[in-house]
Amino acid sequence: MLPIDKGLKKMTDVDSQTVMRNLVAPASIAIVGASDHPERIGGRPIRYMLDQGFKGKIYPINPNRKTVQGVLAYQSLEEIPEVPDVVLIAVSPSQTIESLEVAGRLGVRAAIIFSAGFSEVGAEGAELQQQLLAIAAKYGIRVLGPNTLGLFNARIGFYPIFSSSFEGGWPLPGKVGIASQSGAFAGHILTCARNRRIGVPICITTGNESDISLGEAIAYLAGDDGIDVIAVYTEGIKDVDSFLAALQLAHERRKPIVLMKTGRSRLGSAAAQSHTASIAGDDAVFSAVIADYGVVRAKTAEELLDIAHLATRKIYPTENTLGVLTISGGAGVLISDRAEELGISMPALPQSAQDHLKALLPIASVVNPVDHTAQVLNDINLVGQFADTLVSAGGYSSGLCFFTQAGGPPLLSSKLRGQLAETRRKYPDRLYVVSLIGDPDCCELYEEAGFTVFEDPSRAVDAIGAMHNLGRAFAKSVATLGYSEERHGENLGIVGDINEAGAKRILSTHEIVFPAQQPCQTVEQAITAAVKIGFPVVLKVLSKDIIHKSDVGGVRLGLISIDDVREAYAQIMSRVSSAAPEAQLEGVLVAKQLDGGIECIMGVNRDRIFGPIAMFGLGGVNVEIMRDIVFKRCPFDVSVAISMIESIKGSPLLKGYRGAPCLNVAALAQMLSNLSRFAVKHRSDVVSVELNPVLALPHGAYALDAVIQTNGGGQ
Amino acid sequence: MLPIDKGLKKMTDVDSQTVMRNLVAPASIAIVGASDHPERIGGRPIRYMLDQGFKGKIYPINPNRKTVQGVLAYQSLEEIPEVPDVVLIAVSPSQTIESLEVAGRLGVRAAIIFSAGFSEVGAEGAELQQQLLAIAAKYGIRVLGPNTLGLFNARIGFYPIFSSSFEGGWPLPGKVGIASQSGAFAGHILTCARNRRIGVPICITTGNESDISLGEAIAYLAGDDGIDVIAVYTEGIKDVDSFLAALQLAHERRKPIVLMKTGRSRLGSAAAQSHTASIAGDDAVFSAVIADYGVVRAKTAEELLDIAHLATRKIYPTENTLGVLTISGGAGVLISDRAEELGISMPALPQSAQDHLKALLPIASVVNPVDHTAQVLNDINLVGQFADTLVSAGGYSSGLCFFTQAGGPPLLSSKLRGQLAETRRKYPDRLYVVSLIGDPDCCELYEEAGFTVFEDPSRAVDAIGAMHNLGRAFAKSVATLGYSEERHGENLGIVGDINEAGAKRILSTHEIVFPAQQPCQTVEQAITAAVKIGFPVVLKVLSKDIIHKSDVGGVRLGLISIDDVREAYAQIMSRVSSAAPEAQLEGVLVAKQLDGGIECIMGVNRDRIFGPIAMFGLGGVNVEIMRDIVFKRCPFDVSVAISMIESIKGSPLLKGYRGAPCLNVAALAQMLSNLSRFAVKHRSDVVSVELNPVLALPHGAYALDAVIQTNGGGQ
Repeated sequence: MLPIDKGLKKMTDVDSQTVMRNLVAPASIAIVGASDHPERIGGRPIRYMLDQGFKGKIYPINPNRKTVQGVLAYQSLEEIPEVPDVVLIAVSPSQTIESLEVAGRLGVRAAIIFSAGFSEVGAEGAELQQQLLAIAAKYGIRVLGPNTLGLFNARIGFYPIFSSSFEGGWPLPGKVGIASQSGAFAGHILTCARNRRIGVPICITTGNESDISLGEAIAYLAGDDGIDVIAVYTEGIKDVDSFLAALQLAHERRKPIVLMKTGRSRLGSAAAQSHTASIAGDDAVFSAVIADYGVVRAKTAEELLDIAHLATRKIYPTENTLGVLTISGGAGVLISDRAEELGISMPALPQSAQDHLKALLPIASVVNPVDHTAQVLNDINLVGQFADTLVSAGGYSSGLCFFTQAGGPPLLSSKLRGQLAETRRKYPDRLYVVSLIGDPDCCELYEEAGFTVFEDPSRAVDAIGAMHNLGRAFAKSVATLGYSEERHGENLGIVGDINEAGAKRILSTHEIVFPAQQPCQTVEQAITAAVKIGFPVVLKVLSKDIIHKSDVGGVRLGLISIDDVREAYAQIMSRVSSAAPEAQLEGVLVAKQLDGGIECIMGVNRDRIFGPIAMFGLGGVNVEIMRDIVFKRCPFDVSVAISMIESIKGSPLLKGYRGAPCLNVAALAQMLSNLSRFAVKHRSDVVSVELNPVLALPHGAYALDAVIQTNGGGQ
Repeated sequence: MLPIDKGLKKMTDVDSQTVMRNLVAPASIAIVGASDHPERIGGRPIRYMLDQGFKGKIYPINPNRKTVQGVLAYQSLEEIPEVPDVVLIAVSPSQTIESLEVAGRLGVRAAIIFSAGFSEVGAEGAELQQQLLAIAAKYGIRVLGPNTLGLFNARIGFYPIFSSSFEGGWPLPGKVGIASQSGAFAGHILTCARNRRIGVPICITTGNESDISLGEAIAYLAGDDGIDVIAVYTEGIKDVDSFLAALQLAHERRKPIVLMKTGRSRLGSAAAQSHTASIAGDDAVFSAVIADYGVVRAKTAEELLDIAHLATRKIYPTENTLGVLTISGGAGVLISDRAEELGISMPALPQSAQDHLKALLPIASVVNPVDHTAQVLNDINLVGQFADTLVSAGGYSSGLCFFTQAGGPPLLSSKLRGQLAETRRKYPDRLYVVSLIGDPDCCELYEEAGFTVFEDPSRAVDAIGAMHNLGRAFAKSVATLGYSEERHGENLGIVGDINEAGAKRILSTHEIVFPAQQPCQTVEQAITAAVKIGFPVVLKVLSKDIIHKSDVGGVRLGLISIDDVREAYAQIMSRVSSAAPEAQLEGVLVAKQLDGGIECIMGVNRDRIFGPIAMFGLGGVNVEIMRDIVFKRCPFDVSVAISMIESIKGSPLLKGYRGAPCLNVAALAQMLSNLSRFAVKHRSDVVSVELNPVLALPHGAYALDAVIQTNGGGQ
C-alpha cells in the first residue's frame, strides 16, 4: 500500500511550512565547498548573493582560505559563530555525508545539497543517498537534493543556486514561481521567462528529492502571497501525497498550476529513468489525476510560459466566449480555427452591433472575428470604436486583437494602446490579449496597459483557452473530488484466486449489479437454477484457474431448454477437462442471458503512484484499438461517473444512436461509482477489478463477468 | 464537371511562365493612383522601389502632379513613353475598371490591382470583378488581384506592394519564397521571418485571385532557381488545376512546400468566406490530397517558418533517426517524448560507443539522448568528443544539441561551435540542429556554421520530423500518383436513380465483387434463384425510390429454405407497401448470405475542388463516431489502396486480431482501387458511390450493398 495519508499530514503540518520558509528565506547560510572562483559550482552562489545583496549572513567554509570572494571564510562548520539556518553543500559525495553529519550535530535544520553522484548514478549512489537520509533523519535535518541545482528567492537576494542562467540577467520582479525537478530545464525556462520579461521571484529545483519533494516546493509557492501562478516541471512524481496536497492547496487558493510532465513516451520514460530515476507512471492516468485539481498541462516550455504569463492577470473566465478584432482577415480565420478546436465559442455580434460597425466601415467584416482591416491605420479612431462595440455588445469573456507588425512601431503602437485603453477601463473584468510583433520595450508598454502580448495568434488562443479551463476548474469545489474519503484501505481478506462466482458475490455486496445467476456443482443443480432464473440462460465453467473461459470451451450461450442445459453442462465439463486438464473445476455458473444493448468495459487498477484508478470504455475494440477510454482517480460519485461516460468519443452510442433506444447511463454511472468506492475501500489488497463486458440496456446496466485480482493481503 | 485538365495545360504553357516572369521581374511599371505621400497605398510602392533601387522604369500616373516623390509623373497611362510591362492600379473600383480598359488598349500584358471592393464585399463587387475580368480577357491582360497587397522581388528592388512590414526593415537575402492569398498574413509571416533572419527574396500575394492563382504563384517560385523552399498561406483553393500542377512541379524540382491552410473549422470556414469568399472544402480531403505531393502542412505561422527555415538546408533524410546531445537530462526526456510522438526513432548508441563516452565522463547518460551534463562547461573538449561519437557511431540522419542559455554567451558559444564544427565537416550530409537561447547575432553565427537554431527544443524536433517527411515524399516518384490518367470523364449515361441491382451490375463490370445474386420479379423467380445460389440467402427489396431498405422492412436475412424464401418475399412486399406506399417496387434481390469477417465501408465522393475522393473505414461506428477514416484522391493503384487500409487505426482488426483469421486485405485494396478508377472514368456524372458494408473475409472481399448517385449526365 502506498501511504496515501502520510504526505497530506506532512503538508498541513506546521513543520513542513516552517522548514520551507526557513529554506527559502533564511537569515544565514553556510556554504561547504565555497570557492573563490566565481564560476565554480561552490563559487557561483556566493557571487550571486553578494551581487544581489543578500541581507542574511554568508559563511563560506573553505579550509584553505582566509576569505572567499572577499567574505571571511571558516575552516569548518564548527567554527562559525552561530548555527546557520541553511547549509549548502557542494563537495564530493563522501564529503557531503561527513558535512551533513557535522551540520546535524550542530543543530542545522535545513541543507541544500548540490553534490551529484547519488541515486541518479545507480545502485552505489543510491546506497550513499540512503546514508545521507539516515543522517538527516537522525538529526531532523530537511534536505533539498542531492543533485539539485538549488533555489533562489530574488526578493531577498538569496541565491543558493549554480545556474548559468543569470549570465544573461537577473530574475525580474513578478508573480510566477517555478518548482522543477530538473535544474537545467528550470534554467532554460527561467532564461526564456526573463527574455519575455516574465517575472520569477522564486524558483526551487528538487533534484533527486531524497527528502524535500516537488509537492512541498509547490505547496510553499501556493502559500506565498507574492506568487500568483506556479510553473512546474516534472519527470514523474516521487511523493504522491505531498504532490496532491500541494495541488489541493493551490486550488483552494485559486493559484493556477501550469505543469509540464515529460517521460510520457516509451523513449522519454527510459530517458527519464536514466536521468533522475523517476517513476514515469502511466501518462493518461497522470493527466486524469491532475485535471481533477484544475492543473493545466503544457507540452512545451513555450506553452508553459504562455499560460503562466497570461494567468498572472488573474482573470479566469468560467464561460468561454471570445471576441476577435483583426487587421487581417487571414488571422481571423486562423484564430477561429484554433478556437473551435479548443472548444472556445466565438458567438456572432448582435445584428445591431454589426450594423453599427458596417456603418462605420463598409469594407469591414463585422460578425466575429471582426476585421476592421488595415484601413484603420488611416483612421485610428475606428480601432477604439470597434473595440468598444465588440466588448460591450458582444459581452465576450475574452478579447483578442491581431495587429501583427502594425502594432509594433512606437508612434502607432502608442495610438493603438490609447484606442484600446478606454474599452479596458470600462470593462476591466475581461481578459485582453493582443497579437503583435514588437520589440521588448514596445511589448512591455502593452503589458503595463493591461494587454498581454503574444506574437503568434495561435499561441494567444491556446493561452486564452487555458484561462477558460482554469476558470471552470476554480469554479468547482475541491471538496467534491471526494479523495479525502476512506483513506485507509481494508483488506478484502482473500488469500489466493477468486472464481467468477466469488468475485460476483463480493461485488454484489457493493451494489454492482449482475444478471440473476447461481453457481452450481451438478447438472441437476444447473437445471433447477435455469428453470428458476428463466430461459434463455448461459452456462460458464467456474474455476479460479481459468481466466479466459471461452478459450477452453467453457462458455455456452443461448440455452433455451432443460435439454440444452443438460447437454451444455456435459459438453463444458468434457471440453474444459481436455483443454485445461490441470484446472480445478468448481462447477458452472448459470446466469440469465441478456441480449441487445451495448457492451462496455469498466475496471479499476491500482496505479503505482495514485492508487486505485477507474477506467471506462465501450466494447473491446473501442478500448483496445481506438483507445477511447477515460480514467479517473477513485473514489468518485455518480455525477462524476456520468461526466466520465459522456467524455468518451463513443458516448453517442449510448444515447439512442441512429434510432436505437437510449441506454441507461445513470445505471452505468452508478455501477462505475460503486466500483470506485469498492476499490478504495479495499485498496490494501485489491490490485484490479475488471467488469467485462458490462451490458448497458434501456432499463439498467449489468456486469456479465467479473475478475478480481488481489495480492493476498500484502502490499 | 470541374475542368481538371485546363490548369495543367495552363501551367506547362510557356505563356503562364512568361507572364509570371514579366510580372515578378519587369523592366517597367506604371502606377495608377500614384501618391506623393509615402504612407499612402499608392505612395508606398514608389517609396519602396526608390529606396531599394529598382532598376526598371517607374511611371507614376497622377493627373494633379508634375512629380510624385520626385519621380516625373504622367497625367494618364496614354502619356507614358512606352508600354509598361506591368500596371499597378490603386484607385476606386470604377476607376480601376476604366484604367484596365486603357491599359488593355495600350497593350499592357500584366496588372496588379490593389483596389478593394470586388468579390470580397458581396454580389455587387462580384459583378464589378466580372467586368474587370471581361476586360482582361478582351485584351489578354493577366491580373494579380484585385484586393491584393501586391508582391515584391527583393533581388531587383521591385516592390509593387503596400505592406507596412518594411517599416521594421527590408527582406533579407535567402531562399524562402512566399505565396499567400492573404496579404496581411503574408506581412505577418514576412516580419516574423525577418526577425528570425530568414531570407525571403520573393513574396506574391494573390488576393481575390480573379485571374492569377495561388498555384501560378507557387509554380513561379518552384521554377525560380533562387528559391529553395516555398511557404504558402491559403484559405481555400480557387483554381485546383494550377494548384496541383504547381505542387507537382515543386515535387519534381525537390522544392519543399510548407503550407498553412486555415478555414478548416466550421467557424474558421465561415470567417474565410467573409474574408475572401474562398471555398473552404473538406479539410481532411485537402490534407490527403496535398500529402500525395509531399506538401508539409503547418498549423501555425511559427511552425510554417520553423519548417521552411530548416528546409533551406536542403537535407531531407529518407530514414528518420535522431541522435540527441544535451546539457540537461530534462530536455533529453522532453525531446524523446516528442520524437516518439512524431515517429522519429532514436536508436541507442552501440555499446562500444556508450562505453567510450562513459569512460570520458562517468556521470554522463550515454544511450541516446546522450546527456553530457553541464560538466562539459568545465571541460569544453568533451562536447566535440561526444558529438563526434554520437554522429559517427550512431549514424543518425539528424543530430540535435540542446545547450539552452549556455549556448548563448559570445565566448562560450564560439567554443561550442568550434567543438561541433569538426563533426559537421566530417559528416556534412547530416541535418544539424541546435536548441539554445542566444541573441540574433549569436544565432546567426551558428546558422552560418551550418547549425540551424531553435530556441524551443520541442519545435526543433517538430521541424526535424518535417524534414524526414519531405525526404520520404521526395523519394517517391510523382508519376506513381497516377493522377495524369484518365483525365476526361465519360458519362455513365444514366438518367434518374439506379436501384441496388442496377448499381451492382454496373460496378460488377468494373470488377467490384459482390456475392452471387439475382434480381427477381416474382416469388417463384426468387425461389429458383435461391436454390441456384445456395442457402443461406438474403432477400432485399429492389426499388430505386428506397435508399434505407431496412427501415421499411425491406430486408430479410438468414433464409435457409424454400419456405423461408416464400414467406420472406411475401412479408417484404407487404411491409414495404405499407411503409412506403409511393415507392415503385421492382421485385427483390436474392443474394448469397455471407457471415463472419469484418464489415468495412468504402465510397467515393466528388469533391467540389479535387474531384473524386475515395474513402475507406471499418464498420459504421468507426467511421461515423470515431472518424477513423482515410481519404485519397482518385484514381490510385492497389499498393496505394493497401497503404490506405493500413493507415487507419482499426486496421489491426483485419489482420488476425486476437486469434481471429487474417482477412483478405489485398482483395479489399483491389476493390478500393477499382472503385477509384470507376469514379474517375465516370466523374462527369457519377457524384458518389457507396459500398456499405463491404465484408472482408479470409478468402476475399464482397460488397453487400451498393448505391450510385449520378447527376443525370450534367455537371
